[in-house]
Amino acid sequence: MKQIAAIVGGGVIGGGWAARFLLNGWDVRVFDPHPDTERRVGEVIDNAMNALPRLYDAPMPKQGNLVFCDSLVDAVADAGWVQESVPERLATKHAAYRSIQEHTDAGTLVGSSTSGFKPSELQQGAIRPQDILVAHPFNPVYLLPLVELVPSARNSEAGVEEVKELMRGLGMVPLHIRREIDAHIADRLLEAVWRESLWLVRDDIATTQEIDDVIRLGFGLRWAQMGLFETYRVAGGEAGMKHFIGQFGPCLEWPWSRLTDVPELTEALIDKIASQSDAQSGALSIRELERLRDDNLVGLLRALKDRDSAAGAHLNAHEATLLPPVNGRAGTAELLELLDVQVLPSWIDYNGHMTEYRYLQVFADASDALLRLIGVNQEYLAGGHSYYTAESHIMHRSEAKLGERLSTSTQIIETDEKRLHVFHTLHAVLDGRVVATAEQMMLHVNSASGAVCPAGETVMQSLAPLAKAHRELPRPDPVGRFTGQRRTA
Amino acid sequence: MKQIAAIVGGGVIGGGWAARFLLNGWDVRVFDPHPDTERRVGEVIDNAMNALPRLYDAPMPKQGNLVFCDSLVDAVADAGWVQESVPERLATKHAAYRSIQEHTDAGTLVGSSTSGFKPSELQQGAIRPQDILVAHPFNPVYLLPLVELVPSARNSEAGVEEVKELMRGLGMVPLHIRREIDAHIADRLLEAVWRESLWLVRDDIATTQEIDDVIRLGFGLRWAQMGLFETYRVAGGEAGMKHFIGQFGPCLEWPWSRLTDVPELTEALIDKIASQSDAQSGALSIRELERLRDDNLVGLLRALKDRDSAAGAHLNAHEATLLPPVNGRAGTAELLELLDVQVLPSWIDYNGHMTEYRYLQVFADASDALLRLIGVNQEYLAGGHSYYTAESHIMHRSEAKLGERLSTSTQIIETDEKRLHVFHTLHAVLDGRVVATAEQMMLHVNSASGAVCPAGETVMQSLAPLAKAHRELPRPDPVGRFTGQRRTA
Repeated sequence: MKQIAAIVGGGVIGGGWAARFLLNGWDVRVFDPHPDTERRVGEVIDNAMNALPRLYDAPMPKQGNLVFCDSLVDAVADAGWVQESVPERLATKHAAYRSIQEHTDAGTLVGSSTSGFKPSELQQGAIRPQDILVAHPFNPVYLLPLVELVPSARNSEAGVEEVKELMRGLGMVPLHIRREIDAHIADRLLEAVWRESLWLVRDDIATTQEIDDVIRLGFGLRWAQMGLFETYRVAGGEAGMKHFIGQFGPCLEWPWSRLTDVPELTEALIDKIASQSDAQSGALSIRELERLRDDNLVGLLRALKDRDSAAGAHLNAHEATLLPPVNGRAGTAELLELLDVQVLPSWIDYNGHMTEYRYLQVFADASDALLRLIGVNQEYLAGGHSYYTAESHIMHRSEAKLGERLSTSTQIIETDEKRLHVFHTLHAVLDGRVVATAEQMMLHVNSASGAVCPAGETVMQSLAPLAKAHRELPRPDPVGRFTGQRRTA
Repeated sequence: MKQIAAIVGGGVIGGGWAARFLLNGWDVRVFDPHPDTERRVGEVIDNAMNALPRLYDAPMPKQGNLVFCDSLVDAVADAGWVQESVPERLATKHAAYRSIQEHTDAGTLVGSSTSGFKPSELQQGAIRPQDILVAHPFNPVYLLPLVELVPSARNSEAGVEEVKELMRGLGMVPLHIRREIDAHIADRLLEAVWRESLWLVRDDIATTQEIDDVIRLGFGLRWAQMGLFETYRVAGGEAGMKHFIGQFGPCLEWPWSRLTDVPELTEALIDKIASQSDAQSGALSIRELERLRDDNLVGLLRALKDRDSAAGAHLNAHEATLLPPVNGRAGTAELLELLDVQVLPSWIDYNGHMTEYRYLQVFADASDALLRLIGVNQEYLAGGHSYYTAESHIMHRSEAKLGERLSTSTQIIETDEKRLHVFHTLHAVLDGRVVATAEQMMLHVNSASGAVCPAGETVMQSLAPLAKAHRELPRPDPVGRFTGQRRTA
């Protein structure tokens, strides 16, 4: 498939798709007659560039080209995939498919971002109904991995498999829904919560802020990592799932919900919600809220990635396809660029700058990345050997501020079977200035006894050519300096 | 209030309460006639000890005493707070309150963990109805911060405020629900999702695994940090909340949900869910699932803590109350003992030892304690001056293990108006061995410009006699050494 995506409809969802395709190396062609499309999509892409690459330790593919098209035909003519995100009106969608399929070949698949319509409804009256299916993402599309993939009986199995592969290539997790249904799965659950919440606000039981707090300080934390059923399975404990569910029987018959009524969305209720929401979140602009949300999502996703759990397990699987071969950089006389981080709020001290121990955290992470590169992985550690840091000399050169992007470059100074002497430099990505340096001496040890011992053969085989190449690099000035040593001009 | 909590009912929820009280320094007395109570509560406390302290960088209070009581009266007699977590049957709860209030004084408050009953229902027929209210937590109680606090009109305002203070002391976030309602707030939302999910499983639209994936790869990640309304506000973008909600009008009338029907929980449906759940999660025991959940929650909560957002902001506020006061002695020719810490679970790396950057954290804290000792306090900082660390040389001498107590001793090596050169030694308290040393050079700066400048008079007056006294002490051997320097015998 040509790696060209046509994005038809350039709102928040279309923009999110554009960003995900672009940052995963696809060329993107956007069509939306709205006069603000370029600015709106551009803002979403800015947000995505600020967030998505932070999920990966591996470099992402080279970004694709972005073109805003004046006509639908320009956008779709060469596309390998068309993503439709026009407003949720069936007639509007049908009109879009007609135009799209008049200008594309048979077999060019069209995914719809619809959160409500069934694929069989979308396919009604289409030129090639079998080429249309639901590919429903979640906002922000560039960060959340889930995409609900809903074909009808008319779609071919091979076509659905092709779309799954495509979505996985974008770092997404396609959930193939085998029986079409209004609103698929997620939005049915969301609709249920939304309805009940409207009643709670309408009846003055809770404000929008209170409902949000109930979610994010309570079950929202559970649902970010286990869903509903696994959470209940755990809560049920040893008695088992069957026993636990049985207990719910009586509750279902209790009048614990107003869900059996449909709340009327009066002007007064809309006003009430809007003004409560202003009180809750109005101090921040939408842009600021987006960045807050994205920063939090990056943190949550990285926490799960560290644990190889839930969304984090999928991120690791995707990252494995991005990693260059282990020895890809070995043998060249180039500094190793091992780490790219952002200064987080918890890294700031009472002086308003990055606090000193966080520097060592970053340098230690860079050393860990180097160790992984030379084959000191989980398996090697399990074998009872590791490298321990014996000493570190950190020199601070300039201040790092909140939110600043920093990257490390690493030089191997000297190494033998037992010693690994490295020098890290921490740069600011924006202006390239040196923020700090660290000289570290690591020793290879038997982790049970703590005694220094020679490194394994595989490690030495990875390390030796790297070290040899690095000997050609100039020796950094701070190497061998002691604390408080005066500079000689 | 006496810091003694009576836990009446020792299931998963009662055990979770016991753990949260204990680890926050309260004495705990558990009563539950079930023969397995001691084991069950013990397992929950084990889980909690493995998870809760990892949320904090500060040491938690000294753990309280745990006693399992043979009678209710033994458990409640001296209690400052009674937490009732008996089964969800109104008659059972009424009987419990009668026994509790027969053996406690007026003003001893009883919180109920009920997820369904209104406080006015709980209070019916009680000896002192005004002393009973709902304090509904979320599983795992020792990690999730939310507690729904629901009084009736009979509870005093002062009593409710007292309970809020108590809950905050446990690191929880009390949400005061002003109008009582069946199932409070969270469980109404949960019930809605549960009902809709039952339909989806029953109608073979999705399996339990698929529903869980939809949640944890999609909106569950959103809800861990923003709730429903703030998420939608952001999604609505610049058009505003009011416009966004208005769009929902038509959807609410669409038949997107089966919520208006109540699913019948037949034996066949229970079997289906139980067997799907076995297929999904049966490879792990409940204990393993609990640990997985807790590890993930710790990671998610720490990610939010780093960003000072949502549940993380509350954790930071609680942690600020845990920080110990500064200690230290000035003016004598003795090393300064400035810091006493314990190796926390979050300080342990993949090798099972204290990870290297935490050493610098401890040394930096010792330097901060020294600065406070010589008058570099909040007022001095607000005046626009501070000391910044220019360089640090850390040498590792032995390994520190989980739970080990460590203390620092600090020597001033040299100082003038602009420079403060210090040497810290980190000892194990138990056997006195040296764990690590750090040599640090700090510079006095104008914090606005970052330029080095002379320290203020008050600071120099505190520092000079201390430095003079320390000149009599022997110079530590590692001072002036560079990284990798061989030792000369």
